[in-house]
Amino acid sequence: MPPASTPARRTAVDVTALLERGRTLATPVLRAAVDRLAPPMDTVAAYHFGWIDAAGNPADGDGGKAVRPALAVLSAEVTGAAPEVGIPGAVAVELVHNFSLLHDDLMDGDEQRRHRDTVWKVHGPAQAILVGDALFALANEILLELGTVEAGRATRRLTTATRALIDGQAQDISYEHRDRVSVEECLEMEGNKTGALLAASSSIGAVLGGADDRTADTLEKYGYHLGLAFQAVDDLLGIWGDPESTGKQTWSDLRQRKKSLPVVAALAAGGPASEQLGEILAADAKSSDFETFSEEEFAARAALIEEAGGREWTAEEARRQHTIAIGALDAVHMPDQVRAAFTALADFVVVRKR
Amino acid sequence: MPPASTPARRTAVDVTALLERGRTLATPVLRAAVDRLAPPMDTVAAYHFGWIDAAGNPADGDGGKAVRPALAVLSAEVTGAAPEVGIPGAVAVELVHNFSLLHDDLMDGDEQRRHRDTVWKVHGPAQAILVGDALFALANEILLELGTVEAGRATRRLTTATRALIDGQAQDISYEHRDRVSVEECLEMEGNKTGALLAASSSIGAVLGGADDRTADTLEKYGYHLGLAFQAVDDLLGIWGDPESTGKQTWSDLRQRKKSLPVVAALAAGGPASEQLGEILAADAKSSDFETFSEEEFAARAALIEEAGGREWTAEEARRQHTIAIGALDAVHMPDQVRAAFTALADFVVVRKR
Repeated sequence: MPPASTPARRTAVDVTALLERGRTLATPVLRAAVDRLAPPMDTVAAYHFGWIDAAGNPADGDGGKAVRPALAVLSAEVTGAAPEVGIPGAVAVELVHNFSLLHDDLMDGDEQRRHRDTVWKVHGPAQAILVGDALFALANEILLELGTVEAGRATRRLTTATRALIDGQAQDISYEHRDRVSVEECLEMEGNKTGALLAASSSIGAVLGGADDRTADTLEKYGYHLGLAFQAVDDLLGIWGDPESTGKQTWSDLRQRKKSLPVVAALAAGGPASEQLGEILAADAKSSDFETFSEEEFAARAALIEEAGGREWTAEEARRQHTIAIGALDAVHMPDQVRAAFTALADFVVVRKR
Repeated sequence: MPPASTPARRTAVDVTALLERGRTLATPVLRAAVDRLAPPMDTVAAYHFGWIDAAGNPADGDGGKAVRPALAVLSAEVTGAAPEVGIPGAVAVELVHNFSLLHDDLMDGDEQRRHRDTVWKVHGPAQAILVGDALFALANEILLELGTVEAGRATRRLTTATRALIDGQAQDISYEHRDRVSVEECLEMEGNKTGALLAASSSIGAVLGGADDRTADTLEKYGYHLGLAFQAVDDLLGIWGDPESTGKQTWSDLRQRKKSLPVVAALAAGGPASEQLGEILAADAKSSDFETFSEEEFAARAALIEEAGGREWTAEEARRQHTIAIGALDAVHMPDQVRAAFTALADFVVVRKR
């Protein structure tokens, strides 16, 4: 038997179908869960998920890549259970993810998400807080109403991930007020904001299927490093992504003064480009007309980040985390096609363009 | 054996000592839980709980009446367990209660709580959202890390209560934008905002101690109606409370245009005073100089509410709910002194002056 990561095995998996399966299995249960909310929270949540527009008319919004539900139903299959066993887990991680988006958008003052006005912008800050709270509670409800020992264990792991998510947001906010953030601090923040919930997504179906703690911990290791790879790629796309693919503005993260991995790595690298970048960003931080900067000015900053090595370092970091993620799978017994699917999802995460 | 509600039995219980016991058992664990939060959330939470002042110096703040932790540790004794068995439950309900206070104060724009500036006022809206989220997550963590079947059941009940809490806040917000709110709607909202968490507080220790669902449901019935009695008294104190005792302004709820029970009952009563009150409050709702109204103007509104019967109706409602709460206890076996303590707490709730 060839090792799980051979190219031959990888090409056999249709990632689009895997993502579609997660979405198809989770969405009806997610919609039913959201329908439990008292008005007007049900409507506000439906708007957030892209199921209706701001006027309340049905919409077919961009629900995102849906990596989390795909991982959750896939992880159920680790134990030999049917993917359906992972559905409550898939719904719970989506609910927690969207709870954090609702609150983060408000805290960060972000006005756009998935090409649409954010909830606080359309329905006001109070509804963004309230519906976020409700989705968080609903995540626990969906799991705990299963009434099993496994559901209690799954909820506990999800709670740990949620706490990490909150820690990550706290770090993100505090870093905004600082001149310098180290690469280690940035990685810790991204591990909390992205790694922890992908970790929980990768284990939750298995836990619901009765996996032991060692198996769940190993799957979480896969998901955590997958999350770091995912975020490194996101940070690259946030600067050099094609607006046609990402749906974001050019130099999006630079416009938001984000201290993302390429930036902190470039600043930490030393050398002339790194030092010049440091001076420019320090001046930008004090600039009052930053928002009127031209394309060329952002392009010049991106070029300096690249020259200082921030782009290549981040690309290498994505590959490094991808390797750790796939390597972690070796410690767990699982059906070959499940291993191949986990591997294919990790491959997808690092090559995606959006 | 005399029935549980005889005056003789009631006088045997020292309510102050009961409340103090709950506070003493819960506080060290609550503080240790809050210490788990990453900076600056630990500091912000410590400020909220009154353990430090805005400058970060130790403070001996007013932690509130602490009825919830007292109920939680008492309920553990229903099953014959030690009160200590209820401690994680007491801490969890306090965490959920304070999560809701942090978010509600921000949503409602309230600048003062327990005689101090609210968290969003001192530390900004983002910290109020974030620390609220963290306390909610911590509540689940504290329970689920017990790792028992009972902890899963307790968390599920607490989650149900939290969802009700959120529903109640949604109702409260939506009622603010309406001219009229019925007595039934007001009671439903108060049941969600106050009843549900007192219900969970009254059962959580018992659930952790292994009580069956029927026992837990019955204790929740006691707590729910206790909550409605509590809120009716709160609504009376919100208008006619002595500022010296309550620490609030005179006519506090009237100044905030709160559609509390005495107001909605007075408006629903019909008759000349009721109609006159309706006209005045409708004009107040449109008034731009409402905040400059004199003592006498608020006193005149309070007098109309009383004349229309709103004060007496609410006092009667408090007694009615108190009776239902105590009556619910009859359906559960428990040690005599535990029953007497539950009864004494219910008595305390309706006679308190703050």
